[in-house]
Amino acid sequence: MVISPRRRLWERRPTTTDQTVRVAACQVALDIDDTTGTQQRLEDAVRQAVSQGAELVVLPELASSGSCFGTAAEARRAAQPVDGRFVGWLTRLSAELGCVLVSGLCEASGDDVFNSAVVVQAGEVLTLYRKVHLWGSEPQFFTPGTKRPVVVDTVAGRVAPMICYDQEFPEWIRIAADLGAELITVPANWPQLARPSGERPLEVIKAQAFAGTYRVFLIIADRCGVERGQEWIGGSVIVGPDGFPLAGPASDGAEHAKARVLLADVDPHLAQEKGIGPHNDARRDRRPDLY
Amino acid sequence: MVISPRRRLWERRPTTTDQTVRVAACQVALDIDDTTGTQQRLEDAVRQAVSQGAELVVLPELASSGSCFGTAAEARRAAQPVDGRFVGWLTRLSAELGCVLVSGLCEASGDDVFNSAVVVQAGEVLTLYRKVHLWGSEPQFFTPGTKRPVVVDTVAGRVAPMICYDQEFPEWIRIAADLGAELITVPANWPQLARPSGERPLEVIKAQAFAGTYRVFLIIADRCGVERGQEWIGGSVIVGPDGFPLAGPASDGAEHAKARVLLADVDPHLAQEKGIGPHNDARRDRRPDLY
Repeated sequence: MVISPRRRLWERRPTTTDQTVRVAACQVALDIDDTTGTQQRLEDAVRQAVSQGAELVVLPELASSGSCFGTAAEARRAAQPVDGRFVGWLTRLSAELGCVLVSGLCEASGDDVFNSAVVVQAGEVLTLYRKVHLWGSEPQFFTPGTKRPVVVDTVAGRVAPMICYDQEFPEWIRIAADLGAELITVPANWPQLARPSGERPLEVIKAQAFAGTYRVFLIIADRCGVERGQEWIGGSVIVGPDGFPLAGPASDGAEHAKARVLLADVDPHLAQEKGIGPHNDARRDRRPDLY
Repeated sequence: MVISPRRRLWERRPTTTDQTVRVAACQVALDIDDTTGTQQRLEDAVRQAVSQGAELVVLPELASSGSCFGTAAEARRAAQPVDGRFVGWLTRLSAELGCVLVSGLCEASGDDVFNSAVVVQAGEVLTLYRKVHLWGSEPQFFTPGTKRPVVVDTVAGRVAPMICYDQEFPEWIRIAADLGAELITVPANWPQLARPSGERPLEVIKAQAFAGTYRVFLIIADRCGVERGQEWIGGSVIVGPDGFPLAGPASDGAEHAKARVLLADVDPHLAQEKGIGPHNDARRDRRPDLY
């Protein structure tokens, strides 16, 4: 499959529009031992989101496979090429529903297995991104990506995909924002960790801080349910460029929900405006000469 | 006055200790039209903090002057050299009370006026820092600093001062952390801005995210009260290297409190530990080759 990382399928929206688009983060229970059931849940969630008007839908990290691999061989067996079944299903779904889909994928490429994400639109893969910052035992299973974030034009705005732990490095958000990203889309698998009562997960706090620092939208689709005994935060959230949630954070990971769809209406063009009040600017106020 | 940026007045604590120290953020009402009353409130707050066991006390930005200047000439008149009255008072107080003090200062130096902070201990100025990232109309009044964060050894741990908006740039926290800072001390003046009901100020969210990202303590002393019609968040907070508040955030800025003292017991050495679980590390997981 030919990947067209900056292909414009439609005429780019004028950059002065205030047109809003509805975006969705689909928090779905993935099950490494039932990928057929998982794919049905993913499809149900996407159809629900689109039936509610979503034009861009984000699915979790490693949605094609689940993530609690026991061995590298198991991850290898679960991996699919970008022109394989899972992305084929995503592209058909995007064509049928007329939406942009961003999804995690356990990707086979030559001898490597990557933790990847694709952006698909109208039956075509616009870009493939490979997770750079690996978490936990992932280095046992995945080759880290070696490339910076990419930004693709979609009908829903300028999209940069990144994956889970990538989003916890402010530089990654900054680079995507500097490349013109309006909507940073983050398939995620956030394992449930202890935190003080009443506090949001630190992952959510980072999402808020970094969205606010670099003035972009962040659309994070976490997972829920339990997989091989592992619980997940289920903390999906859509954050605006002011750093405050537009939808979520969800918090039903521990309740083993099958799926949850977060929706928000966003004006992607707002992310092109880096001014903060009459005097300040998120980009110009930086002092890269000193960093 | 000779400034000794890395002078060790006491033997440095061994880096393997788990000794805790009590630190304080003193949120005080500053009044540009009553600097005598302001200084009394500052002193009362410091004495209260130390009487409750604080070994390191942080005061707000521009504590010597207030900040709602009408003209550059007014800021110029309010500015004092580092060997002037205000820092003289701070050093005497630190000597009398046996504590480390970090305070904001409207600093005169040659033809320049800087928005500065000093770290004083046992009657000596350990370091002077000049705010680099200026907010709002500050460029009318202040020359921006040109130097990176500095770290000084104190009896309470390794301290890096920075000022208000500086703290909203993750690079600044990273640089200080990479220089070995354990306690990042932030005199602040956070103007009250609109935010969604029930949400913490974005400044606090950034403090949590950046402390958690770079695994350091952040001790932020905001101000309260009203000055020439300007209200303040009054959001002082002490955040641990896990990104969660140890004290605060205060939220009584709008209630015009005269002062509030936040206290927390911290183990500065925890900030030297950058590991996150068995596999990850806040420093090693970065990919500066790609940033």
